[in-house]
Amino acid sequence: MQLEQLGEFALIDLIKKDTINVGDSVVIGIGDDAAVLKPTPGSLQLVTTDMLVEKVHFDLLTSSAWQLGYKAIGVNLSDIAAMGGVPRHVVIAIALPKHLPVGFVVSLYDGMKEICREFGVNIVGGDTVSNPHGLVINVTVLGEIEPDKLQLRSGASVGELVVVTGTLGDSGCGLDLLMQGDWQQYDFAVPLVTRHLVPKPQVLQGPMLAALGSTSMNDISDGLASEVNELARASHVGMRIYSNLIPLSTQLQDAAPVLGKSALHYALYGGEDYQLVFTIAPEQFKVLAQVDIGAHLTVIGEVTDQSQGILLVAEDGCTSPLEAKGYNHFR
Amino acid sequence: MQLEQLGEFALIDLIKKDTINVGDSVVIGIGDDAAVLKPTPGSLQLVTTDMLVEKVHFDLLTSSAWQLGYKAIGVNLSDIAAMGGVPRHVVIAIALPKHLPVGFVVSLYDGMKEICREFGVNIVGGDTVSNPHGLVINVTVLGEIEPDKLQLRSGASVGELVVVTGTLGDSGCGLDLLMQGDWQQYDFAVPLVTRHLVPKPQVLQGPMLAALGSTSMNDISDGLASEVNELARASHVGMRIYSNLIPLSTQLQDAAPVLGKSALHYALYGGEDYQLVFTIAPEQFKVLAQVDIGAHLTVIGEVTDQSQGILLVAEDGCTSPLEAKGYNHFR
Repeated sequence: MQLEQLGEFALIDLIKKDTINVGDSVVIGIGDDAAVLKPTPGSLQLVTTDMLVEKVHFDLLTSSAWQLGYKAIGVNLSDIAAMGGVPRHVVIAIALPKHLPVGFVVSLYDGMKEICREFGVNIVGGDTVSNPHGLVINVTVLGEIEPDKLQLRSGASVGELVVVTGTLGDSGCGLDLLMQGDWQQYDFAVPLVTRHLVPKPQVLQGPMLAALGSTSMNDISDGLASEVNELARASHVGMRIYSNLIPLSTQLQDAAPVLGKSALHYALYGGEDYQLVFTIAPEQFKVLAQVDIGAHLTVIGEVTDQSQGILLVAEDGCTSPLEAKGYNHFR
Repeated sequence: MQLEQLGEFALIDLIKKDTINVGDSVVIGIGDDAAVLKPTPGSLQLVTTDMLVEKVHFDLLTSSAWQLGYKAIGVNLSDIAAMGGVPRHVVIAIALPKHLPVGFVVSLYDGMKEICREFGVNIVGGDTVSNPHGLVINVTVLGEIEPDKLQLRSGASVGELVVVTGTLGDSGCGLDLLMQGDWQQYDFAVPLVTRHLVPKPQVLQGPMLAALGSTSMNDISDGLASEVNELARASHVGMRIYSNLIPLSTQLQDAAPVLGKSALHYALYGGEDYQLVFTIAPEQFKVLAQVDIGAHLTVIGEVTDQSQGILLVAEDGCTSPLEAKGYNHFR
């Protein structure tokens, strides 16, 4: 059945099921003019929004509906985690071509509901509209944080360590493999492609790191170089990043040469890893390193004086400015 | 200059100006991974989201960028008002064709900023992406309400009055005039077209009505018939609406015959008036009627027992079921 046969109200009834995972903060979910929510007393409120456009941000030739749904929510949860916060609620607006099969939309929302269930997030509202030009998904996430845990980009201080979660560059390499098309011949490709299509945001790790003393944090959505630049500029500090310390998966190291790029290039300039980069005082990192936060942590550099600049130190000891590659959504 | 020449960061710098109108509740606005907001202690939080797609919800041949910006925010503020709440913050995600002139986008945001300034609302975040297929605007509004003021659709009781603000049908008639094209020859057309292009949501009236004893409320976005049906169904009551009491502007009464429809048709089934329909006990209405809430109030009917159904009583005394016309965004 196609959406135009089902109709909007029947679609909303389908979507409404299994949307509330932690009900005690929801007075009214989907169904009135607005959702009504109970904030946690004493908490600050976080809000972030992201729009994903078909053929610009995703391609239904390479992503399943379920994967797309999971990722559309995940990239927003990642922004809340990067503030040190806990995501609570999402609202989802979606523009749908009317010829889409109902099963596609159900599967898209199943992906969304899966990641919401995983992290105790409620779907409390949205908007469903028609769009002949393709699918557009807009997710807004509301989160909460205790005021003293807030992770701003501006919180880094000289002498702190620069640390990342997980391995970097996998997702960008996975995207290149998908674009190239014949990736299924390579053993190393599946985990890389999966990390692009179904990234695992560090939703639990963000608030844990904030509680354990991180001082500034970004999620790595536009490549490490761009994120490190943002932290350094906002904090008015310099940074030295050691290229030999940047964690690279073995799959990335196998795949990069096949694609004619270096693994390090993907880590620095590839997008959509959704790992976290943060700064922390060395003595505090010793405490953190004793705790299992469910992610591998790697020290990749240190915070220096602003006058030192933002530098990449290569394995041979040469240093060069670590420029963020020009990132312009309109080109 | 076109957007692709300006680039995303310069665009965000342009947008960022004059976005904070009531700063004491904003810890971080535009510029980090998420906005950080201070909720008012004891308040419930309201959230609503709406997506507007070019050529589906608006046409740049008939609407200016400024008008579109004003309306995109306004329709969302209207949803918050209909809960009895006060809008506080918006986040705006926007997909833009890269060939758009920068001046168009500035003017669009000027319209948004104007209505935000008018109602003391802050623009605290957003997302700007590229879309070759046309403009898509997604607005999410966060509002607040004291728990005892909450206006749900389910709050109406037998014996109460049904009341509306303003006049109804003007916007739908204005849209028909725009579609017909030669509206500029008619004296009555300008206010009707303006009510379609720049509707004035009842942002201040919603919370005032809630404080003065209204029991259920909807904003009139899909025509009176649809809204009355929603209130009656959610409240498990019937309603009698008297057609001769429905407030119609003189312009609408002049214009409707020219378009071959009745003024009443526009009031019942035309969309996007963004007036409010609410229920209230008769003795409470006597109090309300003494207060200047900045909008004309008209009693149009009464709440009856559910078994009586939802009825329209015509001027000749004949009653007929007041059906909401099938509203399906996917047809």
